[in-house]
Amino acid sequence: MGRRTTRHPALKVIAGGDNRREVTTLAVEEPLEIRLSGESYVVTMRTPGDDMDLAAGLMVSEGAIWDREHLPLIQYCTTVSGRSEQDYNTLTLTLSPDVPEPRSSRATTMTSACGVCGVDSIDEVRRSTHFPLPAAAPLIPAETLLALPELLQQHQKVFARTGGVHAAGLFTADGTLLCLREDVGRHNAVDKVVGWALREGRLPLRDTILQVSGRASFELVQKTSMAGIPVLSAVSAPSSLAVDLALESGVTLVGFSRDDRATIYTHPERVTD
Amino acid sequence: MGRRTTRHPALKVIAGGDNRREVTTLAVEEPLEIRLSGESYVVTMRTPGDDMDLAAGLMVSEGAIWDREHLPLIQYCTTVSGRSEQDYNTLTLTLSPDVPEPRSSRATTMTSACGVCGVDSIDEVRRSTHFPLPAAAPLIPAETLLALPELLQQHQKVFARTGGVHAAGLFTADGTLLCLREDVGRHNAVDKVVGWALREGRLPLRDTILQVSGRASFELVQKTSMAGIPVLSAVSAPSSLAVDLALESGVTLVGFSRDDRATIYTHPERVTD
Repeated sequence: MGRRTTRHPALKVIAGGDNRREVTTLAVEEPLEIRLSGESYVVTMRTPGDDMDLAAGLMVSEGAIWDREHLPLIQYCTTVSGRSEQDYNTLTLTLSPDVPEPRSSRATTMTSACGVCGVDSIDEVRRSTHFPLPAAAPLIPAETLLALPELLQQHQKVFARTGGVHAAGLFTADGTLLCLREDVGRHNAVDKVVGWALREGRLPLRDTILQVSGRASFELVQKTSMAGIPVLSAVSAPSSLAVDLALESGVTLVGFSRDDRATIYTHPERVTD
Repeated sequence: MGRRTTRHPALKVIAGGDNRREVTTLAVEEPLEIRLSGESYVVTMRTPGDDMDLAAGLMVSEGAIWDREHLPLIQYCTTVSGRSEQDYNTLTLTLSPDVPEPRSSRATTMTSACGVCGVDSIDEVRRSTHFPLPAAAPLIPAETLLALPELLQQHQKVFARTGGVHAAGLFTADGTLLCLREDVGRHNAVDKVVGWALREGRLPLRDTILQVSGRASFELVQKTSMAGIPVLSAVSAPSSLAVDLALESGVTLVGFSRDDRATIYTHPERVTD
């Protein structure tokens, strides 16, 4: 398993002098190559850790798989040097024979900031979910919803050390944390949560809330929808396209959830007084 | 020109009751298709505005062009309907005949959060700049450097209305703002600044400082290096890979620049007491 943090010497500069040398802790960002049946599918920049969840979640977000049975095997590659060492930056996925072959290799590199690279068209990005959401019905009390950002931050171990990673946390409607994942990429943190759920046989994630640490972008709403999660709550702003997609796909989209207040942009019926 | 912001009704929820309906302002995120000599090259998700700067800067970041002469023409496409209406989500670039043909179409969609989508390999991402930096020599006083985040925010018009966009600002060593651009994507804001500089005939951007509003990711360091900018300063954390690339490419990388303090990760000689 690769390291999640690393140390680096730096100079701290403070107004009015008093500069000092310090050893700082950085969140690690490294490439992970994901192979399908031996063929390279995508390279993504990520923080090491929970790599199998990441790979599984990415395939769910792509619409390629939606059930634990679809992904019988994930392995780190054994290096071709003949020694039995494993390469912790390459994962090989074996899909079940009855899963349709995903479209050909994306043969592309995704940055830690990117969720839908390599996708050919906007229409394809708006691909339909295997888990359409039922009409919005009361789910979570506003008070519980407003408490999630703080609960998330309390459990962010890598953030506490580096200040440099995003987090995604999956909660029940009474505010119980089911799964938390961290990554330098927002979309990776969400894929890691969704992949955990797939591997635990928990998809679709009915009656849960996904709380994220950053902005609510278009691709996070897409991933939420693909996993059948009814509520996405973000600490920062949504974009116009994120709101459009949430409206269309039935996701309750919450933004600016901080300091005991939040803004509900779509399907507010799921949040109760 | 497309709109940079849009209005959307929302429900504000506040702890202890007192919910209310409000009309909120969102940063617009829309696809922009960039064509090279008529052929589709890439689709990127961006906030409309300064699209020509964005397209030009993206080509600089790709290493395809590095001089104003290389890009004689940028036009919005005229729709094929026969009417003279322009399509403000499609730009066609005509490169100078003596510029080597960029590698074939990336035929891919970039999200607003992504800077190097569609790139085939990590090695290619670390492509070399046309403007290698000279050895670090004193450039900017610490006091001026620490003042840049506040200067940036003072000029962020779209952020002031939406709270939902990133910004990149190019400053001289005495703290004079040369160019500021905003976008839902961090990398787009930087590409818009670099594209502005190309079109103004200002590359390489010697003796300038690029201040950005978010994290310092790998791809932002890459874009900084490609434009010949000696100092990149970010309000939030850098990743390990961003620090590695800054060290290697001679960029002074500053992080956590906020509240009158900052951390200098690489080549601190450019910052003076």
